[in-house]
Amino acid sequence: MGSGAIVETLDLVGTLVFALSGAVVGVRRRMDLFGVLVLAFVTAVAGGILRDVLIGAIPPAAIANWHALALSVAAGLFAFLFPAAIDRLRFPVQFFDAAGLGMFAATGTHKALEYGISPLMAAMLGMISGIGGGMVRDVLSAQVPVVLRSEIYALAALAGAALVVAGNQFDLPTPATLLAGTGLCLFLRVMAIYRGWHLPLGRPPDQTPSD
Amino acid sequence: MGSGAIVETLDLVGTLVFALSGAVVGVRRRMDLFGVLVLAFVTAVAGGILRDVLIGAIPPAAIANWHALALSVAAGLFAFLFPAAIDRLRFPVQFFDAAGLGMFAATGTHKALEYGISPLMAAMLGMISGIGGGMVRDVLSAQVPVVLRSEIYALAALAGAALVVAGNQFDLPTPATLLAGTGLCLFLRVMAIYRGWHLPLGRPPDQTPSD
Amino acid sequence: MGSGAIVETLDLVGTLVFALSGAVVGVRRRMDLFGVLVLAFVTAVAGGILRDVLIGAIPPAAIANWHALALSVAAGLFAFLFPAAIDRLRFPVQFFDAAGLGMFAATGTHKALEYGISPLMAAMLGMISGIGGGMVRDVLSAQVPVVLRSEIYALAALAGAALVVAGNQFDLPTPATLLAGTGLCLFLRVMAIYRGWHLPLGRPPDQTPSD
Repeated sequence: MGSGAIVETLDLVGTLVFALSGAVVGVRRRMDLFGVLVLAFVTAVAGGILRDVLIGAIPPAAIANWHALALSVAAGLFAFLFPAAIDRLRFPVQFFDAAGLGMFAATGTHKALEYGISPLMAAMLGMISGIGGGMVRDVLSAQVPVVLRSEIYALAALAGAALVVAGNQFDLPTPATLLAGTGLCLFLRVMAIYRGWHLPLGRPPDQTPSD
Repeated sequence: MGSGAIVETLDLVGTLVFALSGAVVGVRRRMDLFGVLVLAFVTAVAGGILRDVLIGAIPPAAIANWHALALSVAAGLFAFLFPAAIDRLRFPVQFFDAAGLGMFAATGTHKALEYGISPLMAAMLGMISGIGGGMVRDVLSAQVPVVLRSEIYALAALAGAALVVAGNQFDLPTPATLLAGTGLCLFLRVMAIYRGWHLPLGRPPDQTPSD
Repeated sequence: MGSGAIVETLDLVGTLVFALSGAVVGVRRRMDLFGVLVLAFVTAVAGGILRDVLIGAIPPAAIANWHALALSVAAGLFAFLFPAAIDRLRFPVQFFDAAGLGMFAATGTHKALEYGISPLMAAMLGMISGIGGGMVRDVLSAQVPVVLRSEIYALAALAGAALVVAGNQFDLPTPATLLAGTGLCLFLRVMAIYRGWHLPLGRPPDQTPSD
C-alpha cells in the first residue's frame, strides 16, 4: 500500500469516526435529523479545514470534493436511525473520537510537512487537525471542549504527530510512520479513558478567584 | 436589474437584517453600546467571511470594503436607541435571521459557483454562508446555536442554495434564480417558526448518557 | 529602535501576556498541564492568526515560526508551577489581557496597512487582532467573551488602532505611533477596570424576551 493510499484511507476512516462522534452527540441532545447531519459534518471536517486554511491549501479538501460530505451524511443517518446499535459500545463518543484523533493527527502532520511547514510547527498542525473537530463539536453543543478537560487528549495527538515528524526526519517509510503515529495516539488516549492516565492538574492558589 | 445588482442588493439587505438580529440579542443581554455594535457586525459578516476564506476570496468582501461595517453600525445604533420599535415585531431575532439566512444562502452559492467550486459543494458553501452568522452570534452569547436546535434551519438554507445551483445548471436567468432561492429558504423557515414544521427528532436510547 | 524591532517586541510581549492570561484561566479551571499549555497558546495566537488569514498572510506568523509557541509554553509552565506568584497581582487575567490587547491592536493595524488594507478596515483588523485571543479563550472555557460583557474593551482596542492609522496617514514615525496606540488602549482599558468607566448599557424594553 503506497503512502498516498494510506493517507487517503486514514483520512476517510477518521472522517467517518469523527462524524459518528458528532452524530451521537446530536442524537443525545435531541437535535432534529438535519441538525444531527450538520453536527456530524462539522465535527468531521473542522480540524482538516482549519489545517488547510492555515497552510494555504485552498479550497480545503473537505470542500473541494464530496467524500467527507457523503461519509458524514451516512454516519449521521446511521446514528439517527439506529441509536441503540451505537449505544451498545460503552463510551461511543469517546471511542470514535479517539480513533479520529489519531488518524487526523498523523495525516495532518504529513500534509503540513508536504506544504513545507517546519517540523516543529507541522507537529502542531497535526495536533490541531486532530483536536479541531471535537473542539468545534463541543463548543457548538455548549460544553467545555474535551481537549481542555482533564485526561490526556491534545497530548496524545501531539505524541502521534511528533512520531510522524520523527519518521519523516529519519526517512522512514511513510506508511509505517503514519500507522505508528496513529497507533501511539490511540494507545495513549485509550489508556487515559480506561485506565485513568492523566497529567497533574492545576492547583489554583485559592478557591475564590478574584476575577 | 442585472445579476450583479441583485447579488449586491441581496447581500446588503442580508447584512442589514443579520446585523439587526445580532444587535437585538446584544441589547437583550444588556451589553454596552460597543458590545452591541461588535455583535451586530460579527453576526452580519461571519458567514460571508467563512465562505470567502474557504473559496480563497482574500481579503473577504466584508474586510475589503466598508459597506458591511457601515450597515452594522447603523443597525446596532438603531437597535440600541429604539429597542421598543424592534420589539413590536413579535419575533424580531428569528424574523431578521430568517431573511438574512435566505439572502446569504442564495448569494453565497452564487459566489462559490463563480469561484469554480463544484455544484454540490457550492450548495454546501451557500448553506454555510447562511448559517455562519447566527452560529457565531449564538456561540458568543453562550447559547446552543439555533442551527442545532430543532426546527428547520440549515435545511431551509440548503434548499434555497440547491435551487440556485439547479438554476445555474439549467442556465436559467441568475436574478430569477437568486430570488427564488431566497424565497424558498424564507418560506420554509417561516413555516418552521409559525406553523411548527419540523423534522423528526433524535431518540437517545436511554435518558442517562454514559459519557 | 527601528519600526521592525518595535513591532517584533510588541508582538512578542503581547504574545507572552496573552499566553499568561490564558494559562491563568486554565489553572483556575483546574485543567491539566497540557490543557493549560494549549489554552495559553490558543489565547496567544488566535487574534493574530485570524488577522493573517483575513489579509492573506499564509501561513500565519504564529505557524511559520516557533516564537509564539515557545513563549506560550514558558508562560503556561510558569502559571502552572507558580500559581501563587501570579495571584499576587490583584486582577491577573484582566491585567495581562489589557496589555496584550493594546500591543496586538497596534501591531495588527500596522500589519494590515502593510498588506494594503484600507485605513478604516485596517483599524477594524487591529481591533480583531486584539480581541480575538480573549474571545477564543472565553468561548473555550464556556464563558460569554469579555469583549461582549460591559466595560470598555473592544472600544479601547479600536481607539488604539485608530491612533496607529492616524499616525500612518500623517506620516508620523512608526515606533512612536505604535507605542502611542498601545498606550491609549491600555489606558482606556485600565480606567475601565479600576475606575469603572463604561458605555451606556442596552435597555431591553421588557424583562421577558419573546424569543
